[in-house]
Amino acid sequence: MATTYTVEVPLRWGDMDAYGHVNNVTMMQVLEEARVALFGPPPSSGEPAPLVGEAAVGKPGRASAQLPLFETLPAGTQALVAENHVKYRSPLAYRGVPVRVQMQVSKVTAASLVVAYELYDPVTGVHCVSASTTLAFFNIETGSLVRLSAEQREQLVA
Amino acid sequence: MATTYTVEVPLRWGDMDAYGHVNNVTMMQVLEEARVALFGPPPSSGEPAPLVGEAAVGKPGRASAQLPLFETLPAGTQALVAENHVKYRSPLAYRGVPVRVQMQVSKVTAASLVVAYELYDPVTGVHCVSASTTLAFFNIETGSLVRLSAEQREQLVA
Amino acid sequence: MATTYTVEVPLRWGDMDAYGHVNNVTMMQVLEEARVALFGPPPSSGEPAPLVGEAAVGKPGRASAQLPLFETLPAGTQALVAENHVKYRSPLAYRGVPVRVQMQVSKVTAASLVVAYELYDPVTGVHCVSASTTLAFFNIETGSLVRLSAEQREQLVA
Amino acid sequence: MATTYTVEVPLRWGDMDAYGHVNNVTMMQVLEEARVALFGPPPSSGEPAPLVGEAAVGKPGRASAQLPLFETLPAGTQALVAENHVKYRSPLAYRGVPVRVQMQVSKVTAASLVVAYELYDPVTGVHCVSASTTLAFFNIETGSLVRLSAEQREQLVA
Repeated sequence: MATTYTVEVPLRWGDMDAYGHVNNVTMMQVLEEARVALFGPPPSSGEPAPLVGEAAVGKPGRASAQLPLFETLPAGTQALVAENHVKYRSPLAYRGVPVRVQMQVSKVTAASLVVAYELYDPVTGVHCVSASTTLAFFNIETGSLVRLSAEQREQLVA
Repeated sequence: MATTYTVEVPLRWGDMDAYGHVNNVTMMQVLEEARVALFGPPPSSGEPAPLVGEAAVGKPGRASAQLPLFETLPAGTQALVAENHVKYRSPLAYRGVPVRVQMQVSKVTAASLVVAYELYDPVTGVHCVSASTTLAFFNIETGSLVRLSAEQREQLVA
Repeated sequence: MATTYTVEVPLRWGDMDAYGHVNNVTMMQVLEEARVALFGPPPSSGEPAPLVGEAAVGKPGRASAQLPLFETLPAGTQALVAENHVKYRSPLAYRGVPVRVQMQVSKVTAASLVVAYELYDPVTGVHCVSASTTLAFFNIETGSLVRLSAEQREQLVA
Repeated sequence: MATTYTVEVPLRWGDMDAYGHVNNVTMMQVLEEARVALFGPPPSSGEPAPLVGEAAVGKPGRASAQLPLFETLPAGTQALVAENHVKYRSPLAYRGVPVRVQMQVSKVTAASLVVAYELYDPVTGVHCVSASTTLAFFNIETGSLVRLSAEQREQLVA
């Protein structure tokens, strides 16, 4: 059975909409950040972070990704979102505290994976969101699919 | 068979992400704006717009909603997104021109509806996104469901 | 004296924050869109739009930029925001209608310009925001400043 | 001389724009989050967070605001942004690590304050942004200014 990973995602005050809840669109960005905490930042974007423990100006190092898939993909790979399903079970209030997201890699194919999320109100414990995302891997230059290696697939379903 | 409605939704330069495409999260906001063009702004939020043709400072009036459901709901109703499904078929480039979204009300129940979207690149005609949203109607004060009237349900499936 | 340009910028429902006004951060994106309407999309980003009148799938052509500066800059130029000043005079309500923004190019230097904005509530006519942005032009590869030509500078202050 | 407060603000992958930097608009939201870390969430929005050390489901308590001004303001007070000045000194790369923001309350008047920020790249130490925000306090119902008490003003300039 797939491992369950738990991460905390900080909210922002601006995540609230005119109804005073965390907006349903912004919730997708919260889930994106949960993926970043799990897999690391999407490949072929941003700048490298310092290694954990590495000396850095004003920064002791970052918490490493729990399942660092992206950094083992070939250079020039993009991770594209192919599908999103979200079920909003209960409105999420903003309280100035991070939300708790539990994740599982629920499916792995040759060049894609599905990650499933359950999001909870960090204070009341209420189950607010169930969701899943299909990620597919492409080569920027050629546009062709990037296949996961046997090792990567094993790591993902462990 | 349900009517197909077509709307154009303006993009913003900031809708692009580091991959240079319209971001998958922001795409949900684009679809939200397509709903606003179809149904009008979500109830119990914002300020009333001038009626079409009404005299207004610097503003000849707004294009009315094509299917003005929200304004016929009782005062104090909120339209909450209960579910979102999105399939990203092809990355959408930002071109400074509005995207074309076709919509159908694909299902109506006592206190909810499902709207289905197909989004096309306005220049190439490529089919970029298929999606659907379930909207449910609640009373702000009581938290109870707001039922659609027989007339509203008929209007929606016409 | 510099020409005054007037553009209309569509709002989005998601522009409202928990106070029910157009959020002060989002207002900066609204002003960014006013710049896009004036100058065209920032260079070295997005895909070309069809020319006005050009045949295009489902799209009759786009309204051209009023002051199409960016497309006359050399390939590989980025327009970076160097400074933003914003004075929020009155909260802006969301009404489902575009806001009216008046702009002037208030200063031009060798490799930068300043654009000044006045934003008005489209319904009440209330003056909501006064702002200005300094844009500087850089070459992506070299990081060096891109100088405006004499013709460009003349066009800007006309 | 005013105390200097240092906070770390988490970035999000979606903060990057098509130029691959943290977007200049989004930077304003990063500074807003720095204010939330300093003063607590804006009053009259969101739900109360658990007290530090208070028992809570899956949550040990939140880091308290360093200068908890907002919670001492009368009920029904809104903190509105009256002015923002931002100078972008150097583009900020996204690295998956929080940015470091130093803040000072640089001015206090009867019903407003000015907070000044200096933002640094957490890895290179490069000084990326200098900014300031004027916050004014209003009563939601009456729209009248909410005056700071002598104690609040003293606390702010300490």
